Amino acid sequence: MALSEFALIDRFFRDCGATRSDVPLGIGDDAAVLDVPPGKQLVAAIDTIVEGVHFPKGSAPASIGHRALAVNLSDLAAMGAEPAWALLSLTLPQADEQWLTEFSRGLGALARAHNVALVGGDTTSGPLSITIQVLGFIEPTRALRRAGGRAGDAVFVSGTPGDAAGGLALELSPSANDTPAHMALRERFLFPTPRLELGRLLLDFASACIDVSDGLLGDAGKLAQASGCGVQLDYAALPVSPGLVAAVGEHRARELALTGGDDYELCFTVSPSRIEDMLNAVPAGKWGYTRIGVLTADPRAAVIRDGSVMQVSHSGFDHFASPR
Amino acid sequence: MALSEFALIDRFFRDCGATRSDVPLGIGDDAAVLDVPPGKQLVAAIDTIVEGVHFPKGSAPASIGHRALAVNLSDLAAMGAEPAWALLSLTLPQADEQWLTEFSRGLGALARAHNVALVGGDTTSGPLSITIQVLGFIEPTRALRRAGGRAGDAVFVSGTPGDAAGGLALELSPSANDTPAHMALRERFLFPTPRLELGRLLLDFASACIDVSDGLLGDAGKLAQASGCGVQLDYAALPVSPGLVAAVGEHRARELALTGGDDYELCFTVSPSRIEDMLNAVPAGKWGYTRIGVLTADPRAAVIRDGSVMQVSHSGFDHFASPR
Repeated sequence: MALSEFALIDRFFRDCGATRSDVPLGIGDDAAVLDVPPGKQLVAAIDTIVEGVHFPKGSAPASIGHRALAVNLSDLAAMGAEPAWALLSLTLPQADEQWLTEFSRGLGALARAHNVALVGGDTTSGPLSITIQVLGFIEPTRALRRAGGRAGDAVFVSGTPGDAAGGLALELSPSANDTPAHMALRERFLFPTPRLELGRLLLDFASACIDVSDGLLGDAGKLAQASGCGVQLDYAALPVSPGLVAAVGEHRARELALTGGDDYELCFTVSPSRIEDMLNAVPAGKWGYTRIGVLTADPRAAVIRDGSVMQVSHSGFDHFASPR
Repeated sequence: MALSEFALIDRFFRDCGATRSDVPLGIGDDAAVLDVPPGKQLVAAIDTIVEGVHFPKGSAPASIGHRALAVNLSDLAAMGAEPAWALLSLTLPQADEQWLTEFSRGLGALARAHNVALVGGDTTSGPLSITIQVLGFIEPTRALRRAGGRAGDAVFVSGTPGDAAGGLALELSPSANDTPAHMALRERFLFPTPRLELGRLLLDFASACIDVSDGLLGDAGKLAQASGCGVQLDYAALPVSPGLVAAVGEHRARELALTGGDDYELCFTVSPSRIEDMLNAVPAGKWGYTRIGVLTADPRAAVIRDGSVMQVSHSGFDHFASPR
């Protein structure tokens, strides 16, 4: 890429995100200078999405921009943190003005919706790949860790996992006869919603939390493992969307809810003594979360269907099926 | 990549960097939790290096690990900041244990040398590419910006720019008869030294600073432009290493000093009234920097040789040759 192309790209991102007063020096110098509020801890996450791995070749650039930030904001949501700043490293084969316009629009809209300023960046030429690093704040010692769960804690998940995997399948084999339900599933893949508000509310109730990016079963297993527990999920309790059931049938919908990726929902655990308070303060209907299982002293992960342990045919299951 | 490969990779980075007491929660959760010292500002930079773009295919993995961190630490050095934490996003085609061992060794050695903890990461499969994000601290309002220079300020550069470009050329056409001088040049490309201590010392003296990553002439031009100035560099004053001159000749050495990339030296400006104090407090001989020119009211960038303006055949020159 010619140097002038990099200058062009810079222009797309200078005013892309929110404007914040805690950014003494933003994009355009060697590094950004930032004011962390006194009495807060800093929370930092980094995630990369690669063309052909995390999104199909030729994906809508607005979706790519949205997802690159959303996957990172989802990590902050899982900590209960409040996002503030993002840095972008964009690797792309050539500077296409139309592509950059739409990419920065998708990224910028989500950033502004959550008051996130884009404070730094790097553009390089190479295979299309986007890394974003987000920074946020949390009240000291309050971050929701994966490791805080205990055997007996109830397991919850937000939203209707599996929709994004269903949507991705539709993206990969587009049809002229897309129903509104199909379009809704595709939206769940293309424009996932980081559950930042819910994460903040859970600070008062959850014992542990993880964001569901690699499939609910695998991610619940990671939370359980970090907490020194196992997990049992209730097949019948899995919240599957009517649209997903209509698209792929009841059984496949539950399979996708367990093992499909890219949901960016929150999976969290709550001590039995805190459940009622949570349900009162953070109503499940309003916030869209569902009780789906329990942490166990037995270190294995299992899905229970009609009283018996179910086999799940996905590597996400194998990952933690054996005791450590 | 199979899930178990990601788990393998995680193990390489868990204890890779320095151990710091200001990391309440490091690698292994959805995000890291960090304690910023009270009364400091946060400084953040992000940079990506891509195989075939920033380093040759088949480069030594220890060098790749070192460079991925060094290019970011160099950005912090240019601000006068003290580094503290890094996050790594590693995209690689497959998990090769030997490669990962050496990569993490190169990264870890540099991290520990500068007391940088690796607090978070992400591994994905895809074309080899490494993004690192570094975080550090600075005393409030003291960061060295590009924009602080004024016409009449003297321009300095650390080290002997051009060596890395000379070393890269040798890397690309390896010879069995490498002289020690050749090996020294290659080292400058493979293992650049972020000038962190110098950057800290310059806080008391420099009016502006930039790290030299894309070529001295282009980067000095960026500093000048940000400062609302032009710049004149003195061809005869350029510090070229004897090894580079021996390898490519005097003229080509000065050309590489002006336009070669990957030096990761500091280019900085100092008000005439501060030069003597700086030379006393930060001796040029000990710290290895050289006066090479001056910021000008005329917004153009120029290289002066024998009293006349010299043409330089590199796009880095074209980038800012015309007045804004």
